[in-house]
Amino acid sequence: MAKQTRAPKKKSNAEFPAEKFHKTSKPRILVCNDDGIDAEGIEFLAKAMAQIGEITVVAPNSPQSGMSHAMTLGKPLRITKWYKHKKFFGYAVSGTPVDCVKAAMAQILPEPPDLIVSGVNYGSNTAINILYSGTVAAALEGAIAGVPAIAFSLCTYANADFSYSAKFAKHLAQKVLKEGLPTGTLLTVNLPNLPEEKIKGVVVTKQGNSKWKEEMLERNDAYGQPYYWLRGELVLQDDSLDDDEYAVRHGYVSVTPLSFNLTNHSFIDTIRTWNLKKR
Amino acid sequence: MAKQTRAPKKKSNAEFPAEKFHKTSKPRILVCNDDGIDAEGIEFLAKAMAQIGEITVVAPNSPQSGMSHAMTLGKPLRITKWYKHKKFFGYAVSGTPVDCVKAAMAQILPEPPDLIVSGVNYGSNTAINILYSGTVAAALEGAIAGVPAIAFSLCTYANADFSYSAKFAKHLAQKVLKEGLPTGTLLTVNLPNLPEEKIKGVVVTKQGNSKWKEEMLERNDAYGQPYYWLRGELVLQDDSLDDDEYAVRHGYVSVTPLSFNLTNHSFIDTIRTWNLKKR
Repeated sequence: MAKQTRAPKKKSNAEFPAEKFHKTSKPRILVCNDDGIDAEGIEFLAKAMAQIGEITVVAPNSPQSGMSHAMTLGKPLRITKWYKHKKFFGYAVSGTPVDCVKAAMAQILPEPPDLIVSGVNYGSNTAINILYSGTVAAALEGAIAGVPAIAFSLCTYANADFSYSAKFAKHLAQKVLKEGLPTGTLLTVNLPNLPEEKIKGVVVTKQGNSKWKEEMLERNDAYGQPYYWLRGELVLQDDSLDDDEYAVRHGYVSVTPLSFNLTNHSFIDTIRTWNLKKR
Repeated sequence: MAKQTRAPKKKSNAEFPAEKFHKTSKPRILVCNDDGIDAEGIEFLAKAMAQIGEITVVAPNSPQSGMSHAMTLGKPLRITKWYKHKKFFGYAVSGTPVDCVKAAMAQILPEPPDLIVSGVNYGSNTAINILYSGTVAAALEGAIAGVPAIAFSLCTYANADFSYSAKFAKHLAQKVLKEGLPTGTLLTVNLPNLPEEKIKGVVVTKQGNSKWKEEMLERNDAYGQPYYWLRGELVLQDDSLDDDEYAVRHGYVSVTPLSFNLTNHSFIDTIRTWNLKKR
């Protein structure tokens, strides 16, 4: 269904800045993800955003789940035009979700967009998954760059139906474009994999305490040498609709405002009493 | 100087749980990094920790700078014994810093350690770098697992002298082992690349606002096709010794307490007034 072609060679900058933004009153929306440009979820999200703005899709050329806020330092990036259903869909980047946002901001777009959306991710990005997620990281990178940003995730690993996610994404994107977000703030949205009529409502939540219970599977390769697979399950640790994972598991859409400052302010005064010296 | 050998094949578990913890009153310390097991900084840190505890080194088998909280999902991990100076040094993992901590906790160590230290990183992990850093991510992963954790970084990209970093790491690790850290809290420590007598002191800081000013360099490969290098500089955005990057640039050791909850609590009430509906 999808076909990759290399951007035509030019004297400079391939075809970037890609399309100069048209004179338009429509908002400019950058669409990213971590499942890769060929994933189903980003197609739904791009279509939904195209109904309310001028979109540019910049996404990884391969799946990048679990890449968190990783960026590519040791090797250069390739940026290629990507086609779906025989039509130009967007730009594929040979890197991580964060690389995509950086490439979009530094190279592809002529000016910062009005909104960055990321997803729709295949799988939950609640609780501790917020740290692991490349989908959330792309939105975080937007917030760092001062652009309002939203990450969308559909909480399932099987039989995903992205149709309601796309509809809600359009609704929330319009709200954010109208109301704005405080500097350095992004939203992460997690949706249950249910048809619209079964969804109970929308709740504003905090990052919950659910964590992975993990183990390493040991296997032997064809030469008798061991290798290890990490596997686990996300164990619910909360019991309130104020918590993201609990809300989704109980049929609600969860919307969580995040920032990228990790300072534990409550501990600063205590550690100052330690009177740390040079030695 | 360093030599990698594959762990001997056994019926199960290679040599893990590695060495059963000895009956000892010494604290058990897990040592990780993101520059790779062969980096100079981890050797200094391991030596310093060995003076106060029983150490196990588990680190990536290749440099992993900028990998943030990435973990390996799509392929299995290899774990191999690693030698330095003809002596067993630790376990090399074919993955990210977070993979190393997970492998240590799930496979290599017989029980959780008393402390996880990460570093000494080559380069600053202040301000927004906290998000990008694999060094900090390893310590964060420790905090997620409920183990007190400290990340150490030497703020230079040239002529690194790790000797004072190692000395200070020993001092702070002893303090943390004695005082403990609140659940879910880690410390990130940034040190100026100065000899001890030139260091002005130790300050407890918050994550500052400094950010990268970035650009993408475009080059053409041997076939005339474009590729892109991201480059940039961290621009100081603060003017107080309460901020990590400012403190380090002014000759102080910076100690910042972090947590892994990114909820922007101050925005929750506002967004609740948006009255988000199912559509």
